[in-house]
Amino acid sequence: MRRNAKVGLGLMVLLATTVFAAEPLHPRLLLTPADVQLIRSELDPVSGFGQSLAATKARVDRYFESTPDVPVPVDPGGGYTHEKHKENGVAIHDAGILYQLTGDAGYAAHARDLLLAYADLYPALGRHPVKQSRTPGRLFWQSLNESVWLVYAIQGYDAIIDTLSREQRARIESGILRPLADFLSIESPEVFDQIHNHGTWAVAAVGMTGYVIGDQDYVLKALYGLKEDGQAGFIKQLDLLFSPDGYYAEGPYYQRYALMPFLLFARSIQTNDPEFGIFEYRDEVLLKAVYACVDLSYANLFFPVNDAIKDKGLDTVELRYGIAIAYALTSDPTLLSIAKIQKPYVLTGDGFHLAETVDAGSSKPYVYRSLVFRDGPAGDEGALVVLRNGGEPDQQAVVFKATSQGMGHGHFDKLNWLFYDNGREIVTDYGAARFLNVVLKNGGVYLPENTSWAKQTVAHNTLVVDERSHFDGDWNVGQQSHPRPLLFESNDNIQITAAEMRDAYSDVAFSRTIALLNGVVPDRAIVVDVLNVGSKNSHQYDLPLHFNGQIMVASPALADHGDVMRLLGTANGYQHLWSRASTFIDGKEMFSMTWLTTDRFYTLTTVAQDGLELILAELGANDPNFNLRREQALILRVKDVNAHTFVSVLEPHGEYNGPAELTTQSNSSITSLRRFHGGGADVIRITTDSGAEHFLALSYDPRADESHKVTVGDRTFVWQGYYGLFDEQGERK
Amino acid sequence: MRRNAKVGLGLMVLLATTVFAAEPLHPRLLLTPADVQLIRSELDPVSGFGQSLAATKARVDRYFESTPDVPVPVDPGGGYTHEKHKENGVAIHDAGILYQLTGDAGYAAHARDLLLAYADLYPALGRHPVKQSRTPGRLFWQSLNESVWLVYAIQGYDAIIDTLSREQRARIESGILRPLADFLSIESPEVFDQIHNHGTWAVAAVGMTGYVIGDQDYVLKALYGLKEDGQAGFIKQLDLLFSPDGYYAEGPYYQRYALMPFLLFARSIQTNDPEFGIFEYRDEVLLKAVYACVDLSYANLFFPVNDAIKDKGLDTVELRYGIAIAYALTSDPTLLSIAKIQKPYVLTGDGFHLAETVDAGSSKPYVYRSLVFRDGPAGDEGALVVLRNGGEPDQQAVVFKATSQGMGHGHFDKLNWLFYDNGREIVTDYGAARFLNVVLKNGGVYLPENTSWAKQTVAHNTLVVDERSHFDGDWNVGQQSHPRPLLFESNDNIQITAAEMRDAYSDVAFSRTIALLNGVVPDRAIVVDVLNVGSKNSHQYDLPLHFNGQIMVASPALADHGDVMRLLGTANGYQHLWSRASTFIDGKEMFSMTWLTTDRFYTLTTVAQDGLELILAELGANDPNFNLRREQALILRVKDVNAHTFVSVLEPHGEYNGPAELTTQSNSSITSLRRFHGGGADVIRITTDSGAEHFLALSYDPRADESHKVTVGDRTFVWQGYYGLFDEQGERK
Repeated sequence: MRRNAKVGLGLMVLLATTVFAAEPLHPRLLLTPADVQLIRSELDPVSGFGQSLAATKARVDRYFESTPDVPVPVDPGGGYTHEKHKENGVAIHDAGILYQLTGDAGYAAHARDLLLAYADLYPALGRHPVKQSRTPGRLFWQSLNESVWLVYAIQGYDAIIDTLSREQRARIESGILRPLADFLSIESPEVFDQIHNHGTWAVAAVGMTGYVIGDQDYVLKALYGLKEDGQAGFIKQLDLLFSPDGYYAEGPYYQRYALMPFLLFARSIQTNDPEFGIFEYRDEVLLKAVYACVDLSYANLFFPVNDAIKDKGLDTVELRYGIAIAYALTSDPTLLSIAKIQKPYVLTGDGFHLAETVDAGSSKPYVYRSLVFRDGPAGDEGALVVLRNGGEPDQQAVVFKATSQGMGHGHFDKLNWLFYDNGREIVTDYGAARFLNVVLKNGGVYLPENTSWAKQTVAHNTLVVDERSHFDGDWNVGQQSHPRPLLFESNDNIQITAAEMRDAYSDVAFSRTIALLNGVVPDRAIVVDVLNVGSKNSHQYDLPLHFNGQIMVASPALADHGDVMRLLGTANGYQHLWSRASTFIDGKEMFSMTWLTTDRFYTLTTVAQDGLELILAELGANDPNFNLRREQALILRVKDVNAHTFVSVLEPHGEYNGPAELTTQSNSSITSLRRFHGGGADVIRITTDSGAEHFLALSYDPRADESHKVTVGDRTFVWQGYYGLFDEQGERK
Repeated sequence: MRRNAKVGLGLMVLLATTVFAAEPLHPRLLLTPADVQLIRSELDPVSGFGQSLAATKARVDRYFESTPDVPVPVDPGGGYTHEKHKENGVAIHDAGILYQLTGDAGYAAHARDLLLAYADLYPALGRHPVKQSRTPGRLFWQSLNESVWLVYAIQGYDAIIDTLSREQRARIESGILRPLADFLSIESPEVFDQIHNHGTWAVAAVGMTGYVIGDQDYVLKALYGLKEDGQAGFIKQLDLLFSPDGYYAEGPYYQRYALMPFLLFARSIQTNDPEFGIFEYRDEVLLKAVYACVDLSYANLFFPVNDAIKDKGLDTVELRYGIAIAYALTSDPTLLSIAKIQKPYVLTGDGFHLAETVDAGSSKPYVYRSLVFRDGPAGDEGALVVLRNGGEPDQQAVVFKATSQGMGHGHFDKLNWLFYDNGREIVTDYGAARFLNVVLKNGGVYLPENTSWAKQTVAHNTLVVDERSHFDGDWNVGQQSHPRPLLFESNDNIQITAAEMRDAYSDVAFSRTIALLNGVVPDRAIVVDVLNVGSKNSHQYDLPLHFNGQIMVASPALADHGDVMRLLGTANGYQHLWSRASTFIDGKEMFSMTWLTTDRFYTLTTVAQDGLELILAELGANDPNFNLRREQALILRVKDVNAHTFVSVLEPHGEYNGPAELTTQSNSSITSLRRFHGGGADVIRITTDSGAEHFLALSYDPRADESHKVTVGDRTFVWQGYYGLFDEQGERK
């Protein structure tokens, strides 16, 4: 066996002394006899935990008013049998936990009866009749749901095991728990040994089952792979699926989802084998992963990069476990403010501790910061950068996506950016085209438009060359390269980041610099966005901006295309866009467009280097099943050039207060935007209506000690490193 | 003088004994010396009122950090000088009230200095330079804002008058108060004597000024018109602008707006002339008007019928005054629950009383009911009907618009309906096309698309004949006729209403019956909608349904119109609609369409009488300035027929819970919808997936004691009156 010798040894010792002792103690996963004793003695029904317990109790009582159906599997996600089995798995868990926390033997009987029913059903089941998944299950159309079911059910079994006769235990273990664990492990090696969130769910289910039924082999396979050689399994997944900063390769949406089995299994390992030090492993990578989920959110919802359904955020069950466990490990009082937006508390020992501390009023605000999340197991495969203009959850934030591809759920959006302000999405990402579990929508799985639109480059706010997506839309190719981060700096005047990308197109390289700049307009920062692209060949370069809001005005006006809306293109996402209106500006001319997002105005100002076409596009063409939301984008387009620099500024301004009938500053403060070029460097000049001039000088050279110089009229700008920031008074940094 | 002798006499006596006594007491409008004494002695800074006072204090302190600008008027609504004068008017009010409630003479000085600045500015002003209003002001582009300004400023003056020297009073009264009151009254008879909300603002401003400066003539003109003969003025407005049920002819949006001057002036009359009994006038019509505002809201926002901006609701300043005054009159504890969603409290005696009672925990939930609001001064010009399926603000509600035209702000939407559920708009009304005070949008006034789209019939959920609007879009014609209400009944099984309309088109009559029907599907009601239209000539009949949500599925499928979106029509609103997709069903066939609105599904099922075309239309064509929101409608269309009956059912069902990854019942329960016709009556049969059959029999005959009979197969339905409701067990009512 090849594995971490120290960890492995520690585990072997414990396996011999605890789980497999003559009288194993239960429960032994996320709840222990000591937890139960404490909770039962201290529980106050009007406390936060007491209310969470009461809510679960009410739900479970309702569920068991009649005997739950355990149907023969028929339906895909969202269908009756699918939802029923999901509910039953959770009900076994909940009833078991309620038995422990209330002492009411009726709950144990509910869990027992369901488990016995599954012990009768499961052995005779073949593969699920819905053939939509490459990894079908037996209870469910995909084996993933089967893993999730067992993660819940094994906790319920663990909670009631002491109430069962030897014969009942044998029936349950031989009828459902072992057959299911075997199905998920030795019978599904392509999932179990995969370095992927489906693999994590499988190893967690099997490993937790091993702890509960006292089968060491399940635990070892879960930790080290089917061959128990450390080339697969939980520890290898911890090594490869997270970056050193706790970033998960698929992005925050799947980071949340994967976190659940990581945390539940890790917490079970900690209960059974505390010497393992699982939460210390890899410089506390699991803890970093929990914090990363929080930091990769805005207004409590995750940044929807890659395949992501946009309604998921901090108030999901995964994060409720995550915050409870992270608080138990850190006693960080700012985590309590996250717990306060989550309901209910998880019914574990950590959940009780968290709830009691929140009730005691110990919460402090979580302070959001500008952060770099390196990507890749070694942290050298690009990065996701978050710039924030303040610590509160609704303040300005820029997301800069310079990550690796993120496997099959990755989007083709190298150097994409998003902007949030005032608690809202302003510059948006479509997320995934999917209505999760809605049978009417293709059975609830990813829709065809996820591939034809949502993943395509034009669905994002980044460069599209010749109307083709990055890597020509092949994620296996995308997986082989990643952007190179160039810069990240954050101070009171400026927060700035940059990266370059060379391999998205065979003959095109582009870099992008994005800055949140304070001191130009009152109270808020503006965003400066500079994208440089170059090729030895001539191309069409499109830079879309997907924006959320109602257009107020554009200057020069965007001219309607008459009385017919035509397609913008034919493939790679363009076939879904209507060309609504357009205009054209010559070199050095400015275009600006102002929109209103609920109660604040936003103006994009851009300056043309060469002639620049501006196209207002609306989403919804070639969508016969109405699978797409009706969204919009402004596309900046240059044609037949080798190189181009896109320079834009986005300014939040003013207020529209409908109820108070008050509107202020609906006009942008920015009166002029210019780019001055010299010797490979640029100076961007921003002039406001007060007459003040601000200059952002960019060398594009990440070496900190190199000096650069550009002369603009009678003024010479000299700075060191990637950028310099100047106003009338000289350089400020 | 022709006027109500009793009232007039009472007034005359009081005018002689109070206001015009040697030492008049101030303040004397919405705050009195007794109020001030009570508030000062009992004020608790952490109370609701204390916090409201502190918030005003903070805002006023910030405002007066530097001397407020009193600019020469230049801008339209939303522009700098417009907003500055608005702010100054409010600041005079606020500073005056703060002086009274805190005793801090600094506030009195602030108000005084501003009033003196206006006394210097105003006399030399000509008409406002922006020529966009038929009734221009001098400080503002429309005289309406000038009235509002004076309503605020006179309260501030009233609050500080005791601090002013005789000379200062003289300067202020002769420089601004009297010239402005004269401008609004004798110099603007076309507004002052108008029976319209602009007139109400003018008479309130002038009347309140009369009380404060002790000029009886202003008060009499305000009450009885410039000629003081009762043919105009406040009392005549009370007689003509409200129906006996407190419904305001223009609809809830303008009801709210008009309520402000009605209430402030009425409350001032009550302070100065309590014997007048102004709040008892016309069977307490002002109190009914306040309650009507609450009852004409959903999820705290007003029903947006006629010209209405949709962000207005119960938390507006007008309703904050309204609830405070209504509570003082009624002590109705359910009003306190409305007060709880309003912030801050108004700083009046009534506001203090309200706040103290809310703080004492005396609030009870406001219970929303199904109600008929008769329209017209005598209550005989149609009605607005609200059907609610429960007392809470987020439960199912149907709005049925069988009102009169509502003057120039009325829409051409006879027998239109709206549907709300789950706290959201489901079947929608566009409201007004206007961005209030947003200078970028045509100066913030009504947009051209308000006429070309928002007012047109096709922008509503009601019958359009030959693609022409009701009354051919002429409101003066519309003003001459109104629908005839036929039915309103509300019980546990059914809530049902009906009306007919004869004059919207010269040769077409139509009637509509809408019911909220319980007991067909579990937990919720369904909506049944039956629209009968007939003519001696052949026509095209369109019935649009504007719905809010994402289409899940349509059956039969709505076929895309290929790769080009074409206009649906050329005029009367149709020129703004793209034809996105369509299908066709033959007589007796069914069409259904399911959509998702956030977290609940809705299915419209309709059955064809003759061949029926179904067109999915999207809003946004011919909108060169991007003034329209991107919305959608399903249009039911029959061509070349004389008569037709549209029969549809709308069913809310299931749940989509993204965070919990739970979807239930995304399919409609309704499997069949049929109409059986016999002798002028109809029986609508609704069959659900349980096999149960429900029958709604409609005679369309409002006479309660007439008996009707229709035979369907081997079953004969016999009922009395307009409708009968039957299931397998027989009739239920």
